[in-house]
Amino acid sequence: MTQDAEPAAILHNPTAQGNVLLVCEHASNRFPAGFGDLGLDAAAKESHAAWDPGALAVAKHMSGLLDAKLVASTVSRLVYDCNRPPYALGAMPAKSEKFTIPGNENLTDAERKQRIDQVYRPFLTLLYDTISSAVKEPVLATIHSFTPIYNDRPRSVEIGILHDSDTRLADAMLALAPQFTDMNVQRNEPYGPEDGVTHTLKIHGLENGLMNVMIEVRNDLIATPEEQKNVAKILAELISAALGKLEKEVEK
Amino acid sequence: MTQDAEPAAILHNPTAQGNVLLVCEHASNRFPAGFGDLGLDAAAKESHAAWDPGALAVAKHMSGLLDAKLVASTVSRLVYDCNRPPYALGAMPAKSEKFTIPGNENLTDAERKQRIDQVYRPFLTLLYDTISSAVKEPVLATIHSFTPIYNDRPRSVEIGILHDSDTRLADAMLALAPQFTDMNVQRNEPYGPEDGVTHTLKIHGLENGLMNVMIEVRNDLIATPEEQKNVAKILAELISAALGKLEKEVEK
Repeated sequence: MTQDAEPAAILHNPTAQGNVLLVCEHASNRFPAGFGDLGLDAAAKESHAAWDPGALAVAKHMSGLLDAKLVASTVSRLVYDCNRPPYALGAMPAKSEKFTIPGNENLTDAERKQRIDQVYRPFLTLLYDTISSAVKEPVLATIHSFTPIYNDRPRSVEIGILHDSDTRLADAMLALAPQFTDMNVQRNEPYGPEDGVTHTLKIHGLENGLMNVMIEVRNDLIATPEEQKNVAKILAELISAALGKLEKEVEK
Repeated sequence: MTQDAEPAAILHNPTAQGNVLLVCEHASNRFPAGFGDLGLDAAAKESHAAWDPGALAVAKHMSGLLDAKLVASTVSRLVYDCNRPPYALGAMPAKSEKFTIPGNENLTDAERKQRIDQVYRPFLTLLYDTISSAVKEPVLATIHSFTPIYNDRPRSVEIGILHDSDTRLADAMLALAPQFTDMNVQRNEPYGPEDGVTHTLKIHGLENGLMNVMIEVRNDLIATPEEQKNVAKILAELISAALGKLEKEVEK
């Protein structure tokens, strides 16, 4: 295949000194030349199926506010979903909500391996390296967005605080959320660990003993630069307050 | 799931001293209780879709003749095909030739991971350990069988000598085959590397710099104990002669 001119994963704010490490697996709807556009029309390529609209912008603002490093994929999750392990069928889905992805039908093993090697592995390696080179044990926060209407059903949840088996940071954030926002904040909504969305949390957070949380924002609430900035401020303050609360509890 | 009473992979002839290491990924049509029988009827469970009939018996005879260790899976390849990487759709196929495998349709990520952890990983680990603990660098030979009629088409090839990018051992065996048998021996038939069947050769052979070959025997030729013994003798003599030839060439 044609060599991709851009790296598949990028470390934003590499000199940051804070102990939060932000991750954005679905940051981009870029389709590298070598993989083509998977036969998708323009609407599908712009849709939430291809990426998490607004998530990277929010994550970048949070990165500034928290002085946090940010690891982001630069490739559409329909090419490879960096929040899925290689054995998951959803890593290269042939269908996503109402969208069929022609270029993901009948993939050969060699084609699957190429996606893993060229999209997932660079992301995995960059995140591993960022964690292992951290001076202080980082706290992992992955930033996502979700569509307000899924399979014709409107969703009332506005911010989801998701966790796997380590609930510490999510618990603290959920307890403090009302002090920072009037939005409808819910635990493990609109997805939860049973939907396979905690892959990054598990292999980078739980495996390394790092506190971790996954944040989902309804994408209609982060459609403009102003909204992105406002939500980022709420989330940064909330995560800081939660970490402060946890630190105090440890000191007691 | 229920704990499997039998190990998922077995090392036969563990005290063997020869430098050939035999592998049989499709040795068994056993369906461990924890996974159920995948909704298959008796005919499907006995068929070549579930295992390589005769292959283990041939491999065991070869193990005796060559004083060779033999690593074999004890689980049907329809539960997990140990000659496929976890990302391959064929590792847990929902369809194999004419057989549909109901228990492999709509597998969740967690179920896929359980198969990988409980069937593939023990096999992988046993083979790695056997290779890495070998005193002398082993030569890898995987033993398979294939069905005489596939999708209604009869196959004339009787023995296939398959290779990936390291052709040394296969070349030598193909050159010497007429001295040991009148059977129809072919290179990369009825499958070849493009069919994804050289996974074991690649990750254990090529990755470790070990000479390697995959041997496929048409299963109607190894249906009885007598036939299994005879074919094993031919293959053991052929592989020995080929290794002797290669050794002489190196000495020149």
